[in-house]
Amino acid sequence: MAHALRLAERGLFTTQPNPRVGCVIAHGDDVVGTGFHQRAGEPHAEVFALREAGGSARGATAYVTLEPCAHHGRTPPCAEALVAAGVRRVVIASEDPFPQVNGRGIDRLRAAGIMVETSLQRETARELNAGFFSRIERGRPFVRVKLAMSLDGRTALANGESKWITGEAARADVQRWRARSSAILTGSGTVLADDPRLTVRLGDDEEFSPPLRVVLDRQLRTPPGSHVLDGSTPTLVLHGAAASCADGRFARVERMAVAARGDMIDLHAVLGLLAGRGCNEVHVEAGPTLCGALFAAGLVDELLLYVAPILLGDRARPLLQLPALTDMAQRWQLTLRQQQLLGADWRLQLRPA
Amino acid sequence: MAHALRLAERGLFTTQPNPRVGCVIAHGDDVVGTGFHQRAGEPHAEVFALREAGGSARGATAYVTLEPCAHHGRTPPCAEALVAAGVRRVVIASEDPFPQVNGRGIDRLRAAGIMVETSLQRETARELNAGFFSRIERGRPFVRVKLAMSLDGRTALANGESKWITGEAARADVQRWRARSSAILTGSGTVLADDPRLTVRLGDDEEFSPPLRVVLDRQLRTPPGSHVLDGSTPTLVLHGAAASCADGRFARVERMAVAARGDMIDLHAVLGLLAGRGCNEVHVEAGPTLCGALFAAGLVDELLLYVAPILLGDRARPLLQLPALTDMAQRWQLTLRQQQLLGADWRLQLRPA
Repeated sequence: MAHALRLAERGLFTTQPNPRVGCVIAHGDDVVGTGFHQRAGEPHAEVFALREAGGSARGATAYVTLEPCAHHGRTPPCAEALVAAGVRRVVIASEDPFPQVNGRGIDRLRAAGIMVETSLQRETARELNAGFFSRIERGRPFVRVKLAMSLDGRTALANGESKWITGEAARADVQRWRARSSAILTGSGTVLADDPRLTVRLGDDEEFSPPLRVVLDRQLRTPPGSHVLDGSTPTLVLHGAAASCADGRFARVERMAVAARGDMIDLHAVLGLLAGRGCNEVHVEAGPTLCGALFAAGLVDELLLYVAPILLGDRARPLLQLPALTDMAQRWQLTLRQQQLLGADWRLQLRPA
Repeated sequence: MAHALRLAERGLFTTQPNPRVGCVIAHGDDVVGTGFHQRAGEPHAEVFALREAGGSARGATAYVTLEPCAHHGRTPPCAEALVAAGVRRVVIASEDPFPQVNGRGIDRLRAAGIMVETSLQRETARELNAGFFSRIERGRPFVRVKLAMSLDGRTALANGESKWITGEAARADVQRWRARSSAILTGSGTVLADDPRLTVRLGDDEEFSPPLRVVLDRQLRTPPGSHVLDGSTPTLVLHGAAASCADGRFARVERMAVAARGDMIDLHAVLGLLAGRGCNEVHVEAGPTLCGALFAAGLVDELLLYVAPILLGDRARPLLQLPALTDMAQRWQLTLRQQQLLGADWRLQLRPA
């Protein structure tokens, strides 16, 4: 299963909106076929593994990181393919909560007399597709907020200058987190201040499915000529119902109204909308207002915090705007999942406790 | 020498104002005597090692972490003792810059025909006594600023509440850094806000030389009954020349005027004064104003930063008050020396780059 999980990871940047899935077919320790799902519309992991195994699949054990599908989607059901190939036993890391699967794949295998075991390395398998599971099970994407700060928790100078707080290694690392995301979310404040591209820049040999750029822009303040409006990659601008724009600046992007709550776009509505469009992981690169609002609303699943060993002082810009606390018991508690040194900077991966 | 350095470390909490020194006497790999300096006024490391070695010191090699003394201080010169014991070779990690030694120990040994080698593990030996070397070579103590903060760089809520940002393990760790210091420095703002004891609390079996409590209190605002005025441990209150206090609140502590610069006590003067009193390492536990002023004046040698995995938001108190930067090139750059996990918190040990 560890092998199958490693295979699944090879689809990290490309399977959206599908989950990452790996499959290994073996007789004991003798692997006869391997496969992983690479891209929506293309064959599933099991199909590649069965193809490679050929006649050797008969009587073998298939290790699959996610329950094989049972429905005719863009590809025929994998459960059928496993049955047809004469596999004797199927070991599954995690059930697939997708409504059209959701136990039916397992039922189909068992009905055909195949031994099915589940939950081997289930947590690792679920983690690999945290976004997919979040979308299906909670109706919203997995939200990862990326922030870069000085040691004293500052993201930019008082005058707005923020290039570059962290070093090259940290900035290159960010590209990989963008690449695995279904959408990159920002606010109009960040667009006005930094005019970011929010595209993925990887090496030439690395494929990825370009994430949707999403700009929350209640009043349609995004200026003409902003990089996010350049049409170079799919982009969605979400605005308040009352906002309008007469000129053609939004011609190359999709524009849609969403509910507002007070003077801010309703973040629950935004995430519901993105889930509806098949977004699994949403990568947030925004300022202290939007990031703080996501935290305050309990909508952050992971904080990816890059910390540079520098001090900027109390006049510099804060990390997160959060409601004032009156008691230490109200603090936002996080737990560290992982930390890594990237050049002179650290990357901390944290989750709400 | 590694063995001698480990021995020297055993005096970490007790040798003030003397340096920590260890000594190993050996014939090849055969150790015949070991010793370390424990307390000012008591014998030096070499004396303990020579005592243990007895007649076996003849023809042996002595490894000493610091150049043996050549002067009659509170104890007779160690260089003489090594000569008298018939040691054949002396290996020294670091020269002693103390004016009454400063090469004379080495000269004395060589004059007696002893082979002397220096600089073995010199950096480690100097690091162990960074405060002592700083005091002798730069005329000021080694300044270590301790701060505890949330992940977003906040040290207290807007209402001042700061108990407890970090957990028990981190707070216990702080005691060990206090214990190794000659002085614990704070400002009257911190005394007014938190009324800290600034004493050392260690296990019953651990000895330490109580650090001097130093309060910078330009206007003598420290309230009667403050813990720092309780006389339980030596305490020095430094104030501006113009300040006076009619009541007896300062009766149990030492009080002294120092120069002010604008509306702040002159920090260079404070450090000079503390060096003059034999302070090697000064441990600072103060608020963003005093800590920020020390940073801004380039007087911080080490930042000991405890980071709790919590968020407090932008209304909470900042880590350091520093002059506003107008250009990222002006940032205070630090380098990480060491990091450690303490319960759920981290301890980062950083130095100005």
